[in-house]
Amino acid sequence: MPSSDFTVYPHFWRATRLFPEKEIVSRGGDGQGTHRYTYEAFGERVHALANALSELGVERGSRVGTFGWNHHRHFEAYFAVPLMGAQLHTTNVLLPDDHVEYILNDAGDDVLFVDPGEPFRTIERLWDRLDTIDGIVVMGEERPETALPCVSVYDAVLEEHDEAFPWPQLPGDHPAGMCYTSGTTGRPKGVEYTHEMIYAHSLMAIAPVTFDVDESDVVMPVVPMFHVNGWELPYAASVTGAKQVYPGPSPEPADLARLIEEEAVTFTAGVPTVWINLLEHLERADADLSSLERILTGGSAVPESVMRRYDEEYDVTIEHAWGMTETMSVGSYSRPKSHMRSASAEERYAIRQKQGLLSPGLVMKVTDDDGSEVPWDGESFGELYVRGPTVVDEYYNQPEANEEDFEDGWLKTGDVVTVDEDGYIEIVDRAKDVIKSGGEWISSIELENELMKHDSVVEAVVVGVSNDRWQERPLACVVRRSDADVDAEELRDFLGRTYPRWWLPDEVVFVDEVPKTATGKFDKKVVRDRYEDAELRWTPGG
Amino acid sequence: MPSSDFTVYPHFWRATRLFPEKEIVSRGGDGQGTHRYTYEAFGERVHALANALSELGVERGSRVGTFGWNHHRHFEAYFAVPLMGAQLHTTNVLLPDDHVEYILNDAGDDVLFVDPGEPFRTIERLWDRLDTIDGIVVMGEERPETALPCVSVYDAVLEEHDEAFPWPQLPGDHPAGMCYTSGTTGRPKGVEYTHEMIYAHSLMAIAPVTFDVDESDVVMPVVPMFHVNGWELPYAASVTGAKQVYPGPSPEPADLARLIEEEAVTFTAGVPTVWINLLEHLERADADLSSLERILTGGSAVPESVMRRYDEEYDVTIEHAWGMTETMSVGSYSRPKSHMRSASAEERYAIRQKQGLLSPGLVMKVTDDDGSEVPWDGESFGELYVRGPTVVDEYYNQPEANEEDFEDGWLKTGDVVTVDEDGYIEIVDRAKDVIKSGGEWISSIELENELMKHDSVVEAVVVGVSNDRWQERPLACVVRRSDADVDAEELRDFLGRTYPRWWLPDEVVFVDEVPKTATGKFDKKVVRDRYEDAELRWTPGG
Repeated sequence: MPSSDFTVYPHFWRATRLFPEKEIVSRGGDGQGTHRYTYEAFGERVHALANALSELGVERGSRVGTFGWNHHRHFEAYFAVPLMGAQLHTTNVLLPDDHVEYILNDAGDDVLFVDPGEPFRTIERLWDRLDTIDGIVVMGEERPETALPCVSVYDAVLEEHDEAFPWPQLPGDHPAGMCYTSGTTGRPKGVEYTHEMIYAHSLMAIAPVTFDVDESDVVMPVVPMFHVNGWELPYAASVTGAKQVYPGPSPEPADLARLIEEEAVTFTAGVPTVWINLLEHLERADADLSSLERILTGGSAVPESVMRRYDEEYDVTIEHAWGMTETMSVGSYSRPKSHMRSASAEERYAIRQKQGLLSPGLVMKVTDDDGSEVPWDGESFGELYVRGPTVVDEYYNQPEANEEDFEDGWLKTGDVVTVDEDGYIEIVDRAKDVIKSGGEWISSIELENELMKHDSVVEAVVVGVSNDRWQERPLACVVRRSDADVDAEELRDFLGRTYPRWWLPDEVVFVDEVPKTATGKFDKKVVRDRYEDAELRWTPGG
Repeated sequence: MPSSDFTVYPHFWRATRLFPEKEIVSRGGDGQGTHRYTYEAFGERVHALANALSELGVERGSRVGTFGWNHHRHFEAYFAVPLMGAQLHTTNVLLPDDHVEYILNDAGDDVLFVDPGEPFRTIERLWDRLDTIDGIVVMGEERPETALPCVSVYDAVLEEHDEAFPWPQLPGDHPAGMCYTSGTTGRPKGVEYTHEMIYAHSLMAIAPVTFDVDESDVVMPVVPMFHVNGWELPYAASVTGAKQVYPGPSPEPADLARLIEEEAVTFTAGVPTVWINLLEHLERADADLSSLERILTGGSAVPESVMRRYDEEYDVTIEHAWGMTETMSVGSYSRPKSHMRSASAEERYAIRQKQGLLSPGLVMKVTDDDGSEVPWDGESFGELYVRGPTVVDEYYNQPEANEEDFEDGWLKTGDVVTVDEDGYIEIVDRAKDVIKSGGEWISSIELENELMKHDSVVEAVVVGVSNDRWQERPLACVVRRSDADVDAEELRDFLGRTYPRWWLPDEVVFVDEVPKTATGKFDKKVVRDRYEDAELRWTPGG
């Protein structure tokens, strides 16, 4: 009975009609300058792009891929593609070739938008192995040297179109977006977003309890636009009419510092590594971060020391959130409740370190191996299940994974969590990473975080290694500071101050680098494979 | 592809699970004390109520009416009824008998919740004319003296049930609510709300650009719960986990002042009359309003002088909004844009007096008689059309009204507005009230507002009277201050300082009282009928 437009259209309308003069700023790569235009001009380009795509054969139901960084052309595709009834499928430019090949063929993209430079070279290299793409649009001004057929240049094709596109009326359940899970275990899996999901997520995301942004903010999505639609920030920011700043290809810390200062960014978002690197950069270089109020981070835990430094040195609040490709980014957000205002700084940091309260509009439960709900006491572990209108209920083309990862309308997140009396979720481990030792669970993440508190440790990853007697036992893989000579026994003793004997890793190996996935997470699959037959020096007994 | 729960369930889950200790406070009527309990206890009563209703024969698809004020029992029904798959139909207790009879029979309510006292006596009086109701639940503790059959007592039936109700999984388009338009012209018309409409409206309503409320707020819905679901405030406040304060039956200004002070209310909402009356009360009585930050008002324009007094004397911001039963309350909200921060106080009041920017998630257009969009220049008039997922696309059982009031997915609001360069809507008139004189439009509301600026005028209503030569001509109907002797010519001269000669009313009549509708609006239909054959003293020429 609602009249219409359970789609991204109202968000597009609002941005371009109510805030036509607000700016979209986009850092160019490869020596290109900064691009700057208004929402009004952006809106005209979105119409032009839809016309151009139409000429390339894209129609309602087509799937249009993108393979690029955060910039205004990519942002134009975020609206033009779903508004015309096609589906926007973003692919991670940092993935290994065979993942890219698999994902593009699995999704069956019809047309692909590609950034010039490295991303274009990747597609060129893979071209003979891509089955479905019959049009490449290079997101730039110039045609690259190439032998590929069917390559057009984004700015050139847009120039030929200045008429208004007749947007179709679409039902809310029409496909609008598609992303693939990062696949730390197994093949990447496709997740499809409908129009009404993006509509609802955008409203949920701007709420005071979530991003809390409005038109007075200046929003900079550093999280790549190929990663869960840039955590949906481009859509959420558009609803508000906020000025948006896109940091372009492979932004360095110096680029981010400059953009924050020059564009007066108030709210930004990205994984912890980005903010740790920015902090290091700021030790060496001057920058004015006074406009910046808050940084949203997630994907992995940001160390408390980093939160404190941003608070104390820059008056910037780091806000933790949790989400997955399957939950359209924001599944929970950590803000202290009002009754915690009088809590000590320590208590507030402890809360802010957690993944937070489930987002408005969702429902969750946390259950143990028997399917019983665990008490909300901040200690009992269980797997987190979530459901709601912004959570998917299946993977694309993956009946087996659907069997495994969904249950009676619930998404089994694979995250092992505690929930405290106030309802704050804390991730203890991935269900697949939790170490099952003698019928009890050991959190690999807790051991890693504790190890990383040691002055001599740069990075640490802990995995379970098969063990006949105990089922699994922990092994730690540690990167030392270059000037440190800490040894395995010292680290075990260090852990022993906080954890019981049976939690201590039965082996500690030192490495130069921890293997990482294309999205920068520890690749525990690789670590597990490498050490599956490792000899362990210790036993739980001592 | 979203998993589930495009319903009010996630909002209920969030309130009761994440904020179990937050309070719901409810002022009793008829000498009853204040009722106070937690969201957790509320949640248990919602389960009990669903079980009780089930026993009364209510099932998925049933329609459950309510006929009462703002209190915790009514609030319990707001969740229990839709969660069990039935539809909550709220009816205005202030309507004349024949409207109540018409509405209850048109909706075909199966069971009716009724407040004790006057509302119960109304239903008793009408009982023989009500066709479909086979159960009455009196929202109180005691059974009233009555000869009516099938009467049960709310608290008594709840006491018999303490088990958890097995909420069904419902699709998003399942009916959840129903309200009738106030019917200033013609019969009241039923408007149905689905679950996904309430889900989306609640998220839109809590946004920083709209209510901007979170868990730290204390929210008091003064707007009656029978009026567009209390402007949807009970649902929106529940999503946030804010403490809620319900002011009970027929609250007086003294009750509101006391509740604000004692419960530390931060955000409240109601029609302008409520806040004008509160201001008068505060002239005579002491009250501490220091907790109160903002008042949402709508339905008609609040005088600028009232806004100023709240600002200056109480540091309380009055916020204007616009909405209709057909738009689920909030269709627009007036907050100055960030670039207006440096504007003068006068300019900011001028903006705050407008109805504001269209709410996130909606789309609008403003067209003239030919269907052409009017320019956004703050001067050109046109009728406001809106559409979106929280706007209905039909009336219940009203094929003719549907023909008239909806067009290609748009709701024709019947409001004549201007839109300024920033996109702010200002209501100039109701389409049915605008006076069509010689092919030009005269705004009756502008003349009324201008007349009410005159020191001697208490209230003024202006209507169009048929005129052979000009089609229509304005007639003003004015209530003078008791000690004033202003005459018609003086008022015409007063208007003439601002408006052209042809806008001036051709007749000014003085009356003791302006006829009003049950919701407190000027009843222009009655005024028009009364003066349709009036002799007019003047002509546009002079």
